[in-house]
Amino acid sequence: MSTNKPIRRVAIIGTGVIGASWTALFLAKGLDVVATDVAPDAETSLRNFVKAAWPALERLGLAPGASQSRVTFTADMPTAVRGADLVQENGPERIDFKKKLYRQLDELLPPDVIIASSSSGLTMSEIQSDCPSHPERCVIGHPFNPPHLVPLVEIVGGAKTSEATIQRAIEFYEGLGKQAVRLRKEVPGHVANRLQAALAREVYYLVAEDVVSVADVDKALSWGPGLRWGIMGQVLLNHLGGGQGGIEHFFAQFTKPMTAWWKTLGSPELTPEVQRKLIDGLHAEVGSRSISELEAERDDILMGLLELRSQYEKPTAISLRTARAGSPR
Amino acid sequence: MSTNKPIRRVAIIGTGVIGASWTALFLAKGLDVVATDVAPDAETSLRNFVKAAWPALERLGLAPGASQSRVTFTADMPTAVRGADLVQENGPERIDFKKKLYRQLDELLPPDVIIASSSSGLTMSEIQSDCPSHPERCVIGHPFNPPHLVPLVEIVGGAKTSEATIQRAIEFYEGLGKQAVRLRKEVPGHVANRLQAALAREVYYLVAEDVVSVADVDKALSWGPGLRWGIMGQVLLNHLGGGQGGIEHFFAQFTKPMTAWWKTLGSPELTPEVQRKLIDGLHAEVGSRSISELEAERDDILMGLLELRSQYEKPTAISLRTARAGSPR
Repeated sequence: MSTNKPIRRVAIIGTGVIGASWTALFLAKGLDVVATDVAPDAETSLRNFVKAAWPALERLGLAPGASQSRVTFTADMPTAVRGADLVQENGPERIDFKKKLYRQLDELLPPDVIIASSSSGLTMSEIQSDCPSHPERCVIGHPFNPPHLVPLVEIVGGAKTSEATIQRAIEFYEGLGKQAVRLRKEVPGHVANRLQAALAREVYYLVAEDVVSVADVDKALSWGPGLRWGIMGQVLLNHLGGGQGGIEHFFAQFTKPMTAWWKTLGSPELTPEVQRKLIDGLHAEVGSRSISELEAERDDILMGLLELRSQYEKPTAISLRTARAGSPR
Repeated sequence: MSTNKPIRRVAIIGTGVIGASWTALFLAKGLDVVATDVAPDAETSLRNFVKAAWPALERLGLAPGASQSRVTFTADMPTAVRGADLVQENGPERIDFKKKLYRQLDELLPPDVIIASSSSGLTMSEIQSDCPSHPERCVIGHPFNPPHLVPLVEIVGGAKTSEATIQRAIEFYEGLGKQAVRLRKEVPGHVANRLQAALAREVYYLVAEDVVSVADVDKALSWGPGLRWGIMGQVLLNHLGGGQGGIEHFFAQFTKPMTAWWKTLGSPELTPEVQRKLIDGLHAEVGSRSISELEAERDDILMGLLELRSQYEKPTAISLRTARAGSPR
């Protein structure tokens, strides 16, 4: 397998929210996209999504030649993937469906075409298990929604995925300006959804126990620790939290209280009553603001934050090449 | 107790990192500050801190008349608190020390002077338990470090704290532009540190289990979910995560996978080996960047983010007044 074949044409399987957002990103980065979906109104929805996303993508910077017109749509999957250099698959999260789809893709596609799955809930080891020919080119490339705005993409292979595939996937996503994170083990929820689940659990618990209202727990997060988590990661912040003594001083000082707090963190059950409390509290927080209005606010601030961070970013380094690159395992 | 007495003069007890940062904030908001600490070089350190913080405070906006010269220092605590309208206490986190200090303050100060503690680890019910005269004016006003930059302040009373005190404290902090969050129960770590502990636990676990490097878990947080947590809180983001169906649709769709992820989240032990792995990984992530350089980056982006958010903020509402305000319980 060549690690150098340029990826110019991407097939998108499944054009729901994630697939449509990937489409918008790939187009903005100057790629050709062929999209496929079985839903009757899929093409219209896709084109509307791309059109709506375009001003944001213009603000973040289009690649030369990028155009909304460079997407074609076909309801026929085999037609869609023909000639693609990479497939980004966003099908339903049902293992039987995915295994069958990957078996079919494996038969249709030459071995140097990467098949990347946006799956958040299944592992590649399962998904690729029925591929008869080249399971080594299958990999998870899991975005954080929406992929056209949030830079993170999580890369993790299954038992049969080659190191070369992982490296090519990382290079591809980083080449588009994504922030690629590599998992060395398959774990449920990958990394980002686990972090989100860990935080949400305590948020829900504090509301369920009447410690704080929904509006106030949201306020505490977004005007407190949340402000920093969009700037630097937790361990780097710990390093700064240790003052001039850095992370060593941080652990010396905070291991004891943090460990004590861990023992008191909650494990709520999302009973109908707890959900009701969260839902009612949310509506009290939101008031008359519409979902569209809130989305626009979220995305406007998000883009501003990305612009602020870009001033401190070095050009993406292809830092994860290793001596093993190119050697299938 | 009058709820309307304006707070113009604040006494700061303890001028370590938190006390010095509070001092800088209060000065920037045009208040007079009298600071006290027993450490031999305390006054110099304090004045240096305020001087270093001042450009950031200028960027965020000084109140009319605000001046670094409006802080005085005395090593004598009773002198420092004389004439203060509010005391912000930042002493060591030892319960015996605090109980004794509050007993003494209670004897020294007229009953309409609020005594607010920055304590993160002790409860006000304990701290105020030996106050002979007016324990009802004692309250936790816990900042998120550093208070001169991060807006959050957590307000929680002890068993003897009056509702009027809580309302006055909220009004005071909100009047300075802080985001005040009220806890209705005393819980270890208040809210923000619990959220931080919940997230850190999973971050450390994923590194301890070799799922991901320190650099990559930091990347996953700060280029993924972290980007949004500095914009909106978790429950509001869930509302938007449900698409046009809002939070109701979110719970219908995500309760099952999230609950499944909760079962697999980790509980690492911070053994010396795990700490070593985190420390080594952090240094690999940081490379040659100094702590000062990283702090400057963090604070610059933080201020930019606060500026972005301020465009969407309404003037602070005094929203938490209730029918019970003014009636000590």
